[in-house]
Amino acid sequence: MLQIGVIGDSSPGMEGRRLAFEVGEKIAEAGCVLVCGGLGGVMEEACRGAKSAGGITVGILPGADNGAANPYVDIVIATGLGEARNVLVVKSCFSVIAIEGGYGTLSEIAFALKSGIRVIGLNTWKMNSTASIDHEDEIIRVTNAREAVDKALQGMNSHSR
Amino acid sequence: MLQIGVIGDSSPGMEGRRLAFEVGEKIAEAGCVLVCGGLGGVMEEACRGAKSAGGITVGILPGADNGAANPYVDIVIATGLGEARNVLVVKSCFSVIAIEGGYGTLSEIAFALKSGIRVIGLNTWKMNSTASIDHEDEIIRVTNAREAVDKALQGMNSHSR
Amino acid sequence: MLQIGVIGDSSPGMEGRRLAFEVGEKIAEAGCVLVCGGLGGVMEEACRGAKSAGGITVGILPGADNGAANPYVDIVIATGLGEARNVLVVKSCFSVIAIEGGYGTLSEIAFALKSGIRVIGLNTWKMNSTASIDHEDEIIRVTNAREAVDKALQGMNSHSR
Amino acid sequence: MLQIGVIGDSSPGMEGRRLAFEVGEKIAEAGCVLVCGGLGGVMEEACRGAKSAGGITVGILPGADNGAANPYVDIVIATGLGEARNVLVVKSCFSVIAIEGGYGTLSEIAFALKSGIRVIGLNTWKMNSTASIDHEDEIIRVTNAREAVDKALQGMNSHSR
Repeated sequence: MLQIGVIGDSSPGMEGRRLAFEVGEKIAEAGCVLVCGGLGGVMEEACRGAKSAGGITVGILPGADNGAANPYVDIVIATGLGEARNVLVVKSCFSVIAIEGGYGTLSEIAFALKSGIRVIGLNTWKMNSTASIDHEDEIIRVTNAREAVDKALQGMNSHSR
Repeated sequence: MLQIGVIGDSSPGMEGRRLAFEVGEKIAEAGCVLVCGGLGGVMEEACRGAKSAGGITVGILPGADNGAANPYVDIVIATGLGEARNVLVVKSCFSVIAIEGGYGTLSEIAFALKSGIRVIGLNTWKMNSTASIDHEDEIIRVTNAREAVDKALQGMNSHSR
Repeated sequence: MLQIGVIGDSSPGMEGRRLAFEVGEKIAEAGCVLVCGGLGGVMEEACRGAKSAGGITVGILPGADNGAANPYVDIVIATGLGEARNVLVVKSCFSVIAIEGGYGTLSEIAFALKSGIRVIGLNTWKMNSTASIDHEDEIIRVTNAREAVDKALQGMNSHSR
Repeated sequence: MLQIGVIGDSSPGMEGRRLAFEVGEKIAEAGCVLVCGGLGGVMEEACRGAKSAGGITVGILPGADNGAANPYVDIVIATGLGEARNVLVVKSCFSVIAIEGGYGTLSEIAFALKSGIRVIGLNTWKMNSTASIDHEDEIIRVTNAREAVDKALQGMNSHSR
């Protein structure tokens, strides 16, 4: 099953929460596994959305205690790696959907773009490298959950595993 | 769902393969999720056994390429962490079952025992600390797959999550 | 000794190379240890600058092979962690100086700002969170090496260790 | 400079402490850098020994706080990786000297042997794989600090870097 990531922080605004729930729901409806950081806020809302649509959810936690996962996580990966776990959230996914987000989310966006993993953005970070034109912002900007998941799945048929 | 780990290396003997398949099967029959390192040998046989019984399997890979997972892995965690991923295989589990194994398996046994995670051993490493009597071998030795999974699940009812 | 990080990628422009050398030189002149990712480009020039001034350099490599370090690295930490090593480069430092940089550098900036580690920027990434005013760009922008190291050392007297 | 690791836990016996100090001293006298986990016990005594002989010491910490390093550590690598940092302690070294030790030390021995890094043992773990004759105990056993460092340096002239 295709794994789609949802990245965002634990204290989003009302709009971010709503978007996260809908994105989770649509990932599940598309038959994909939702991967996230396993904590609260955007992560919890996305998992709750996925479970409401009968999906499977994976939470990759920074700490070593499984109990820190939000209640909508099915598979808990307790890493004990701290912030370094952000790399894993991204690398395990076909593409990731960023919803708002703080510096942790920014690090995940950076890792994804560096690894050639597509990033779909919903009201998230904007950045540009002043040093060169090579590193222009490659986030695919969308405005609603349906569009986000559509873009996240693009090319999935040609993707092995 | 309770997550049970199966640790062992990619080139076990015939008996190790058979044991791994049966252990995977019984983990699935018990309604648990099987977590492993996602590669071949013991890991693949255990996943194959779990899938034959309708279970869910998780593979936590050392590399960053999802494609390296054996074909019986449902959820792929591509870590890119190299050997350090061994810590994650163990920390994500309620208990782990060690089947034979090389140095990688030994490191996983050590991490589990250090973290207070129960280790069930099927023809696996024996070790003892000559320096002190505090670190005696705490592996629970068993001789067949049923006994291994029974011991692995012991205390699960009182386990939250 | 205070540890100051220099972050930037392996293919900077001419100006980036010059700045990196000067920054390394000034870190050493200030009696600090230079910490970096250990590879080429900005990392190598900064180490070369530090060694030219008799300093000590540390390279925290993504791979597991010590031999990948640039020739001006004194202490080699071979992590085998891939991109996750970026977290370590940042966490080991009192402050970090970012020179130009690609997505790896952006991830390091994000980790530093999240951890409350001061980031000094020389012609590096600009970013802003559109979702909230909480995450405004906190990089301290400077235009030359002396200013960068001065800002990086600010508050060092009150810093224990 | 050649990097030699000293592994052992934070609560060794009197004999372990004495051995650690002497090993540290001799590593420094040989002109090598001492790498360790940066905490107390064997790690602290080894660093203290190295500093008494004018050496350089590196501590790779499990936590993200530099302040947790023992006072004899020169270069602090704050990883925030938890137990996974054990891999780094080993991979950064030409060879490692194990002094007594608990499960953390056992995991480091396992990682070293798996990576082909020579392990010298002073009253440390004994282990054997019952499953196969391939994994016999490859630790080089010695009885005093001088012998330990001699064995640790063996082959260093032919070592590039």
